[in-house]
Amino acid sequence: MAKDKKLVTAITDMEQDFPQWYTDVVKKADLIDYSSVKGCMIIRPYGYAIWELLQKQLDEIFKSTGHENVYMPMFIPESLLQKEKDHVEGFAPEVAWVTHGGETQLQERLCVRPTSETLFCDHYANIIQSYRDLPKLYNQWCSVVRWEKTTRPFLRTTEFLWQEGHTAHATAEESEAETIKMLNVYSDFCRDILAIPVIKGEKTEKERFAGAKSTYTIESLMHDGKALQSGTSHNFGDGFAKAFGIQYTDKDNKLQYVHQTSWGVTTRLIGAIIMVHGDNSGLVLPPAIAPTQVVIIPIAMHKDGVVEKAQELTSRLSKIARVKSDVSDKAPGWKFSEYEMKGVPIRLEVGPKDIENNQVVLARRDTGEKIIVSMDELETKIEELLNAIQANLLVKATQNRNSKTYSATNLADFEKILNETPGFIKAMWCGDKACEDAIKEKTGATSRCIPFEQEEIADTCVCCGKKAKHMLYWGRAY
Amino acid sequence: MAKDKKLVTAITDMEQDFPQWYTDVVKKADLIDYSSVKGCMIIRPYGYAIWELLQKQLDEIFKSTGHENVYMPMFIPESLLQKEKDHVEGFAPEVAWVTHGGETQLQERLCVRPTSETLFCDHYANIIQSYRDLPKLYNQWCSVVRWEKTTRPFLRTTEFLWQEGHTAHATAEESEAETIKMLNVYSDFCRDILAIPVIKGEKTEKERFAGAKSTYTIESLMHDGKALQSGTSHNFGDGFAKAFGIQYTDKDNKLQYVHQTSWGVTTRLIGAIIMVHGDNSGLVLPPAIAPTQVVIIPIAMHKDGVVEKAQELTSRLSKIARVKSDVSDKAPGWKFSEYEMKGVPIRLEVGPKDIENNQVVLARRDTGEKIIVSMDELETKIEELLNAIQANLLVKATQNRNSKTYSATNLADFEKILNETPGFIKAMWCGDKACEDAIKEKTGATSRCIPFEQEEIADTCVCCGKKAKHMLYWGRAY
Repeated sequence: MAKDKKLVTAITDMEQDFPQWYTDVVKKADLIDYSSVKGCMIIRPYGYAIWELLQKQLDEIFKSTGHENVYMPMFIPESLLQKEKDHVEGFAPEVAWVTHGGETQLQERLCVRPTSETLFCDHYANIIQSYRDLPKLYNQWCSVVRWEKTTRPFLRTTEFLWQEGHTAHATAEESEAETIKMLNVYSDFCRDILAIPVIKGEKTEKERFAGAKSTYTIESLMHDGKALQSGTSHNFGDGFAKAFGIQYTDKDNKLQYVHQTSWGVTTRLIGAIIMVHGDNSGLVLPPAIAPTQVVIIPIAMHKDGVVEKAQELTSRLSKIARVKSDVSDKAPGWKFSEYEMKGVPIRLEVGPKDIENNQVVLARRDTGEKIIVSMDELETKIEELLNAIQANLLVKATQNRNSKTYSATNLADFEKILNETPGFIKAMWCGDKACEDAIKEKTGATSRCIPFEQEEIADTCVCCGKKAKHMLYWGRAY
Repeated sequence: MAKDKKLVTAITDMEQDFPQWYTDVVKKADLIDYSSVKGCMIIRPYGYAIWELLQKQLDEIFKSTGHENVYMPMFIPESLLQKEKDHVEGFAPEVAWVTHGGETQLQERLCVRPTSETLFCDHYANIIQSYRDLPKLYNQWCSVVRWEKTTRPFLRTTEFLWQEGHTAHATAEESEAETIKMLNVYSDFCRDILAIPVIKGEKTEKERFAGAKSTYTIESLMHDGKALQSGTSHNFGDGFAKAFGIQYTDKDNKLQYVHQTSWGVTTRLIGAIIMVHGDNSGLVLPPAIAPTQVVIIPIAMHKDGVVEKAQELTSRLSKIARVKSDVSDKAPGWKFSEYEMKGVPIRLEVGPKDIENNQVVLARRDTGEKIIVSMDELETKIEELLNAIQANLLVKATQNRNSKTYSATNLADFEKILNETPGFIKAMWCGDKACEDAIKEKTGATSRCIPFEQEEIADTCVCCGKKAKHMLYWGRAY
């Protein structure tokens, strides 16, 4: 029992020190390891298996909505990066520059892609001629690099994995529709697969993506009341098309510029899963992205037939769920802690008495509840339970988010709330960047988004008192 | 018809100019586009879909043989690359160096990974302590960069996609077994999925991977008689373990070094598919990796019920195969050429008369043969045909390979064969690197491998006439 206890107490209490709790979980759940490369992490098998499940399900949605995968070079020549003025200003300060190939200095520096708009535009200029070539609905799964000063596993790393959709359309209406469509894909995915509720809205001009006409975002709230930008979708209008000369001949034989979008989510979503659902025993995974949904732990393994029964159940249940059994010689208590740390949704315990009574014990990771279930109805019960856990995680996360969402009508309240009970703050805004800057300066909160669902909290801006234009979500963010 | 003709004649005759034929096919089948980045290509949706099918099937085999996927950083600090002497000598001349992050010069240069042995070793030194931690069976899907002077789509590009397996074992026997096991995985995969027969064998010391104790290879033969190294599997022994200090405590509580392997295949396999199976109408895809296995072309589309029937068949056949229909307003002849160029295994033609007779026409891409099939037995016939095409491609490729495999017992014959009828040459070798160098110098052929299946062609080395040690496969190679 000493070993069990050690394992359980080895992670920091999340209410005491949330950042340390997070660091403990990513390491002890075997999600990552630190590497010798500053700011870059190693995604270990368990962490990568989560990414693969997330990727597989999101990729199916992309394909079912008509998108095709491609692969672009990882390098961008400096001259290509410079073609769109706002874009290069936004990204040049944070890119990694390749200057030498082997012993030879390159004639032109190449940056490692921080994002691939410029490469897609260059390609689109090549392959789009006629309205028949539109729309182009491309996506790419890859890694990108942004030189970060302070990093944290999954949330902000120099290199990270992501997908980047890049589309080209005939009209402004179509590119706007695509931008919103993909934002909804992200938001539904977060809700249905990750059990994370999000606020959908538009970014203010200050927070807009470099080169975009409008940036839409999904914002989620972590257990500690800090916000996390969880996915973005950008409408570029014809700005990039003009910079790169991407034109098509329309039905009337006139040359027109295309209208473009891009949208992306990253391994940061794994950070969101950890910080939204995790608890003091470690990770809590939504069944939809849990690499192991049911772990089978034999009790009193030395007794006749126990290991065999565990193995029989593993092969039986593998037909309906991702199942593994642990028949290693570690103590059951150690195994309980281990799979709690790893966030496995259901633990199935089976021992000699259970076998005698034709039953097993199922323990839910999300509530800790234990139920005794007949072996005859195992499949039904496990499917029910996985659905119930998936649903419950979303309910809990929504309750937490709602209980930590506040309104403020003046800056004093605004700051008091943030300091005493961090969370989302809904507040009115005049539309002036000066007020946005002032609020950030004073409170450390950034504007998260102008939500699609507007509320009239007050008539006046929370900062300057002038007439308000929008209700915004604010928060301190990761 | 003018348009059809143009499309068909637009590719170079493969017997006239094979390299140009290859370039035509990769472009006209929409597999790739050239990019603004020297030596890097864009993999277009059709090309990437082939890679995804290849990747999915190979990944399932890796997982079923106990391997787990991880993700390592794309950068390697210079000091880490230098830890294993042979390895750095082999790769340093061809890596891309990152020297700046944003405006700031880095204290230590980072190279973009040309391969990740050093990163895996660094990680293994961290996570391997006891015999209980072994074996580690890791794999990674990613892109790597090697600065190449001359490049060709899929075959040799500065950046390419691949998988790299990296494993650590307790004993020399286990690492040798893993090396051979994965070579067999590759060889079976090439045969069963890509319909490409390969020669399995060991590389000579000269051709060995930088830092390996032994390198095994699968070698395939292209239509033009040139060889292609199609996959390699390396046994490192404990060389890297000693350089990186990867030790574990064995059951007797003694410190031991691990024994390691690595193995990889790349997007080069797509080049092999093109050059092994392609013909003068373009690509010919084995059904197992064809993004579209059956293309449905309506004939006399303006007639009542034809488009509807094509769509009905598409949805019906989607249950058993990857099917698409082309109901665009292009002429059937144009469509025939287009999908021949793209190597779609089966074309299904359906017109008013077919509908009247409750039949369709099926045309095989590999043989050109057309058969009339009743609509009532479509599923059975298509499954049969896909299997027959898959099998026939392997038979044809094997026949071609065998008919272009020669034996030589003296250098004059050796050179004559290569110049007149290029192919694999089997010839005896004394084991001396001087002879290997001399043969390359004189004939342009490199040693492909010491095949596992040895034959006694002669007693003496084809070059120096001294006593022979091995029979080798030789060839001019891509």
